[in-house]
Amino acid sequence: MPSRTDPEFPPLASLPRGMRDLDGAAMAHRQSLVEAVGRVYQLHGFTPLETPAIERAEALGAHLPDDDRETGGVFTFTDGDGDALALRYDMTAPLARYAAERRNTLVLPLRRYTAGPVWRDEKAGPGRFREFWQCDADTLGAPAGAADAEMCATLAAVLEALNLSRDQFEIRLSDRCLLDGVLEATGLGGPERADQRLAVFRAVDKLERLGTDGVRDLLQEGRRDPSGDFTPGAGLSEPQAARILAFVGAGGADSATTLRTLRDIVGDTQTGQRGIETLETILALLDGFPCGAAAARLDPSVVRGLAYYTGPVFEAVLTFTVPGPDGKPRQFGSVAGGGRYDDLVRRFGGETLPATGVSLGVDRLAAALEAAGISSSAEAHGPVLVLAMGDMAAHQRAAAELRSAGIAAEAFVGTGGMRRQMRYADRRTCPVVVIEGENERAEGTVVIKNLRLGSRIARQTATHEEWKEHRAQLEVPRAAMTATVQRILAEESDGDSAQ
Amino acid sequence: MPSRTDPEFPPLASLPRGMRDLDGAAMAHRQSLVEAVGRVYQLHGFTPLETPAIERAEALGAHLPDDDRETGGVFTFTDGDGDALALRYDMTAPLARYAAERRNTLVLPLRRYTAGPVWRDEKAGPGRFREFWQCDADTLGAPAGAADAEMCATLAAVLEALNLSRDQFEIRLSDRCLLDGVLEATGLGGPERADQRLAVFRAVDKLERLGTDGVRDLLQEGRRDPSGDFTPGAGLSEPQAARILAFVGAGGADSATTLRTLRDIVGDTQTGQRGIETLETILALLDGFPCGAAAARLDPSVVRGLAYYTGPVFEAVLTFTVPGPDGKPRQFGSVAGGGRYDDLVRRFGGETLPATGVSLGVDRLAAALEAAGISSSAEAHGPVLVLAMGDMAAHQRAAAELRSAGIAAEAFVGTGGMRRQMRYADRRTCPVVVIEGENERAEGTVVIKNLRLGSRIARQTATHEEWKEHRAQLEVPRAAMTATVQRILAEESDGDSAQ
Repeated sequence: MPSRTDPEFPPLASLPRGMRDLDGAAMAHRQSLVEAVGRVYQLHGFTPLETPAIERAEALGAHLPDDDRETGGVFTFTDGDGDALALRYDMTAPLARYAAERRNTLVLPLRRYTAGPVWRDEKAGPGRFREFWQCDADTLGAPAGAADAEMCATLAAVLEALNLSRDQFEIRLSDRCLLDGVLEATGLGGPERADQRLAVFRAVDKLERLGTDGVRDLLQEGRRDPSGDFTPGAGLSEPQAARILAFVGAGGADSATTLRTLRDIVGDTQTGQRGIETLETILALLDGFPCGAAAARLDPSVVRGLAYYTGPVFEAVLTFTVPGPDGKPRQFGSVAGGGRYDDLVRRFGGETLPATGVSLGVDRLAAALEAAGISSSAEAHGPVLVLAMGDMAAHQRAAAELRSAGIAAEAFVGTGGMRRQMRYADRRTCPVVVIEGENERAEGTVVIKNLRLGSRIARQTATHEEWKEHRAQLEVPRAAMTATVQRILAEESDGDSAQ
Repeated sequence: MPSRTDPEFPPLASLPRGMRDLDGAAMAHRQSLVEAVGRVYQLHGFTPLETPAIERAEALGAHLPDDDRETGGVFTFTDGDGDALALRYDMTAPLARYAAERRNTLVLPLRRYTAGPVWRDEKAGPGRFREFWQCDADTLGAPAGAADAEMCATLAAVLEALNLSRDQFEIRLSDRCLLDGVLEATGLGGPERADQRLAVFRAVDKLERLGTDGVRDLLQEGRRDPSGDFTPGAGLSEPQAARILAFVGAGGADSATTLRTLRDIVGDTQTGQRGIETLETILALLDGFPCGAAAARLDPSVVRGLAYYTGPVFEAVLTFTVPGPDGKPRQFGSVAGGGRYDDLVRRFGGETLPATGVSLGVDRLAAALEAAGISSSAEAHGPVLVLAMGDMAAHQRAAAELRSAGIAAEAFVGTGGMRRQMRYADRRTCPVVVIEGENERAEGTVVIKNLRLGSRIARQTATHEEWKEHRAQLEVPRAAMTATVQRILAEESDGDSAQ
């Protein structure tokens, strides 16, 4: 039976690479972000809808940019019945399955939001997690234009709700039709060249990381990275690659200038013109939203790495720097992104269902907000601890009485004497300790220690008044225990907010 | 590239067996349960700690009762680096890994709670989900007795916090040492018979489902179920099986009577006596908790199916019935369970770390509370809808203005005329629709439709006053739009709470 372990070869007590445990403070921070984002989504008319973590592998497909692994970046497995399953790698592919499954009864537009973990079987790397949280909003059944403008505006509203000011982020915006138009004009149009065009998109998506030379290599024959790994290129000629790079670098000072430049570059292909028109519509509509059109910047280098985008694409970038691990200022880059995926539902057969959405990287954003000092989870203090002094039934009654007054409390159920229990109280950040030893029981009293005041006195940060008026240790009648603890907690909480 | 799909063979748009999509109302219900349970855990001095969904397969082991599948009930897979991974099937095995990983720096007792999905690769069955939520509390580093009593009391407090009254549930309690003692006395002691004893535990665990005859077969040669599947038995002789069944059926009217009977049955084995003493301690301590000792009932048939339990085991059972799908009253059975698992951390090498915990089946409990009419998620209404009447920028501005007053609102971004949009508003349960057509724009007004009043009038459930005083459709100056919508929503919300 596999539950038995050979004591000579015990299993290793360690997490898989790219996984992590989260303590209460980190969970509380994530939870507060998820709730804040959800409120904004809900305010914009999106309603919650959750899909499971596991889908049939073919229903998810593999649309991730990292296709240098055989797995396509997706965790796949076979269940006991032999069915091929996969863990969701994003929230979009499962939504497409959901919509295709109910195609004839959907209320359109379908506007949903969701939050939860996704999993990616990626290569190792510091700070690269293989389980991370996304918080998505999507609109299905709305053509390009208004719904995409609304996505950008919603994203801006989300970031403002998280206390980022308008000068701390920008929404970078483009449309895949532009690059598609350039590719068409360069002789790379037609359905038979779809894979080559996707390779071009993915090369361009790496601009920030690899620079112009790296992307030029990826557009042509391929690129060998410093570790020696070779990534095959898109197979473009030198003039073709140069034209792509000219397009990518055509972002101007303002969106109007960029639009004019781009109109020339995309030439007269229908696809390119459609992209230009969509972007004009989006920019015009953004003006009516609180964020205004200035929150968005037209940037032809934005393509996003996911395979399924078909039109407008956008990402939210934090514009401030924070000190990196080496002390040098560093940028966080993109914390959210999205775009239009008109063909994703059609994968399952039937008609196109136009769709657009945005995905927010919750953990990344939490790290950015924490590093920038914009938000974090205040470390909550621990429960009140009733020490174990030989009469557990009495101690449990004392803890229960405190709880009935709404005070988090526990009786010590571990092993060890007073010294060890006080050390536990300290490490659990217990604000108060209740002692009901033999003497106290005989006299009908309890001893109550105010550990936070005690710690301030020890650190000599208590005020003279505090030191004079409140002793860090009191003996009170047992009947006064709960009221005394309540008073101390209220005073300490006042002290916290006054600091 | 796998993202391309052969249009001749599109993927099937369906979920894997045992998975489901959750809409907003079901999510809200689950969320409210998880929060309520978390508050009670926190009040009892447990702090949040989350482990990831994926662990190294060997770190999890396989402790599930359903070992009739090759997978042992666990979803396992290999990642791109060839590492053997698994999805957590409970919250306990990952916690043991966490504790073993930090063995030398743990603050003991470690008291944590957590909530989230777990996954099991189980056989098909109606209403059997392979992804479901658990909400667990655990204490590591506390010996048998007080910590187990506290677990039972915490479980009772949780159920009361969910509005179950004390006569709607009971905590069934036993100790695996009892059955171990009986097995020892029956000649089935010793480490070399550990697997056989586990087979006995699992046979007994099926008592409610299979009845005495089924368990007798499983204790001896094995059992063929109606489908023809054969489950091998524990290989006991007839007298041995009879003695086990006598033990299992020894539950009396009250715990004191049961204890006396059991003391005779377990004989003079040390193991059995230890079980008796632990149960006496737990029952005595429970008296000091708000639930009292009467909330728990000693029941020797309780063993729990998981392999890792080593001492006290308990489960919460709902005692009321609800109408089943066939109209007949049915019981929900166990909605939570737990026990002591002193050897689970030792799997990783080193010393024993005594531990106990409880696991609450959130989805099962949600279904039970819903069926019993005790709690459910009130269907929230949809957002205010601004109809698309030809000037999207104006419509988006109107929606943004409503949102800035805290009103969930959206401009219609789909396709279709007035009729289709009103149908959408109806199906989204929008309370109010705002119309700003060409005429209204020319006159500086908007039309505001109160759909809920309109629906009451249509259903003839509006009062005469409502019908007289409030028209279901108003034309107001554009500047009065937000105030008017606010007034209608406030009135309708008053109406809701008055109903």
